[in-house]
Amino acid sequence: MNGTTRVHTLRFDDERLYLLDQRVLPGTVREIALTDAPGVAGAIRDMVVRGAPAIGVAAAYGAALAVAAHRGRPDWRARVDADLALLEAARPTAVNLAWAIARVRALLDRAPNDAVAAVRALAVRIHDDDVAANRRLGDLGAALIDGPCRVLTHCNAGALATAGYGTALGVIRSAFAQGRIERVLADETRPWLQGARLTAWELVRDGIPVSLIADGAAAWAMRQGQVTWVIVGADRVAANGDVANKIGTYSLAVNARHHGVRFMVAAPVSTIDPACADGDAIPIEQRAEDELLSLGGVRHAARGASAWNPVFDVTPAALVDVLVTEKGVVEKPDRERIARLLAS
Amino acid sequence: MNGTTRVHTLRFDDERLYLLDQRVLPGTVREIALTDAPGVAGAIRDMVVRGAPAIGVAAAYGAALAVAAHRGRPDWRARVDADLALLEAARPTAVNLAWAIARVRALLDRAPNDAVAAVRALAVRIHDDDVAANRRLGDLGAALIDGPCRVLTHCNAGALATAGYGTALGVIRSAFAQGRIERVLADETRPWLQGARLTAWELVRDGIPVSLIADGAAAWAMRQGQVTWVIVGADRVAANGDVANKIGTYSLAVNARHHGVRFMVAAPVSTIDPACADGDAIPIEQRAEDELLSLGGVRHAARGASAWNPVFDVTPAALVDVLVTEKGVVEKPDRERIARLLAS
Repeated sequence: MNGTTRVHTLRFDDERLYLLDQRVLPGTVREIALTDAPGVAGAIRDMVVRGAPAIGVAAAYGAALAVAAHRGRPDWRARVDADLALLEAARPTAVNLAWAIARVRALLDRAPNDAVAAVRALAVRIHDDDVAANRRLGDLGAALIDGPCRVLTHCNAGALATAGYGTALGVIRSAFAQGRIERVLADETRPWLQGARLTAWELVRDGIPVSLIADGAAAWAMRQGQVTWVIVGADRVAANGDVANKIGTYSLAVNARHHGVRFMVAAPVSTIDPACADGDAIPIEQRAEDELLSLGGVRHAARGASAWNPVFDVTPAALVDVLVTEKGVVEKPDRERIARLLAS
Repeated sequence: MNGTTRVHTLRFDDERLYLLDQRVLPGTVREIALTDAPGVAGAIRDMVVRGAPAIGVAAAYGAALAVAAHRGRPDWRARVDADLALLEAARPTAVNLAWAIARVRALLDRAPNDAVAAVRALAVRIHDDDVAANRRLGDLGAALIDGPCRVLTHCNAGALATAGYGTALGVIRSAFAQGRIERVLADETRPWLQGARLTAWELVRDGIPVSLIADGAAAWAMRQGQVTWVIVGADRVAANGDVANKIGTYSLAVNARHHGVRFMVAAPVSTIDPACADGDAIPIEQRAEDELLSLGGVRHAARGASAWNPVFDVTPAALVDVLVTEKGVVEKPDRERIARLLAS
């Protein structure tokens, strides 16, 4: 982010992982320091850090903490594996978590001489690669946008959801810098309000004009001709191009198609899961009902009411106009085109 | 409502209008007593009372207060007209407000012997007629539902939005009593959370199973086969059948059509505005940005972000499967069918 105070979504320093606490932004800017893998897993589960790429990077650093903690004991690998399982299970939908942990396991299986240094180096590489991927996909996505125009985004797929720069917001940052975007509409994104709290904060810091809207107002904004592109991130992309992302994304995709608005998904290749044949195979996280029934710890919903709180949904590939990754752009993604991208 | 404590959305007693304060429900159940028309206009504007039919009834009682206050002065009619103008201007989208005030004006133009008693009697009639209309349209709508099934509703079109029983919730109450509905999904309905606060409260009191969902989750619920009907109220229906209702309704209508879910609008005939040729002629209220930027008086959105807060949208008639009124049911509403209903 280009604001006055440099903030880091996550940073690793002196054997500690520091996470910017995204639950209290933007009112409070504070970091939480973590010294072991169970702490990192808890922070991922509790949404101190969120966003598919960011939790992948956090899990890699968590793995580095695990190896450092257990190395030297006779049963160190079993203990590390238990920590890796904890990290992997912290949240179910974003595949980047499993992807990062799989890379750590494969590295450990090769029995490097200095496992502590090797896993730490891998985590740093995953971190750096994510920033580079975001920059690259941001430029590739921006090139698709004829401007100046207005774009709509959902949730937060920005620097806060990644190691830096962002996926959807990476595209928006690049496109804005090139004069292709005049204003961003941001869904507030219930129940966690990532749009109001996080996306608006990032865009204001960068001087990009942003208007918040209620999630229910997106279709009406499209009807009024206020949206040329919908640009979102992803938590997992299936082999056929189906996209799991924050609840509400699917509604946007249906409405975008209805209104002739283009629909872009921006995600690094690490978010594509070739092992998931299609969206039906993607696990959708259900979170606590209380996230919908209370606000700031105060119950506002009627007592006796229950809530259904799936926090992701799946947009079928047929509703996606373009998938933008750091390896290239896939127009009208399908199984064959995605396989070609992964093989390239 | 059939709950243990009988509550009235609005009641007129001893020359006072008592309004249940809907801004603080369900946590606090309190009435606000109003003794003059400017006070009633302010209460409508500030959403102490909301819902198109309810604000029509409240305005009629406000007119009765105006006549009682000014009758006897030489310039009483001019003073009453000024109060009527205040009431009419309190909120722009719901036509019931203008409809009720027009009835009062027409009555006063006939110069009744006892204007105070006559306007009070008209207000009581508008009040009673609304309850009867809701009961009747509730039964007509319920007959269209093959059950048991699940329905989705948006905002609050219940007893709290009317003089009693409700429009969309009137249909749901009647259909539930007949075993046609097994569960209601209620959009929480940002920014005012009428679904979470008001609809859930009404349904829990009546023993009707209700699950709250984020507004963005409605399309995903449809995709999962959890919704057979969307049933909503209306703030104004144009002569061609276009429907203004709470922001988010239009998104539901687009999604309902996409998923083969049926879309029902339930509203009394007083909500139809033959003077509005189509939806483009319906004024859409914009409310304060702060309704989206803050929660409970605490700013949660990033400083520097603006908000776009239209609180109604327009659903084109082509997306409405059926309009249910107390005078009858209009399948696939259009200009001709609505004219026929009004003439019947």
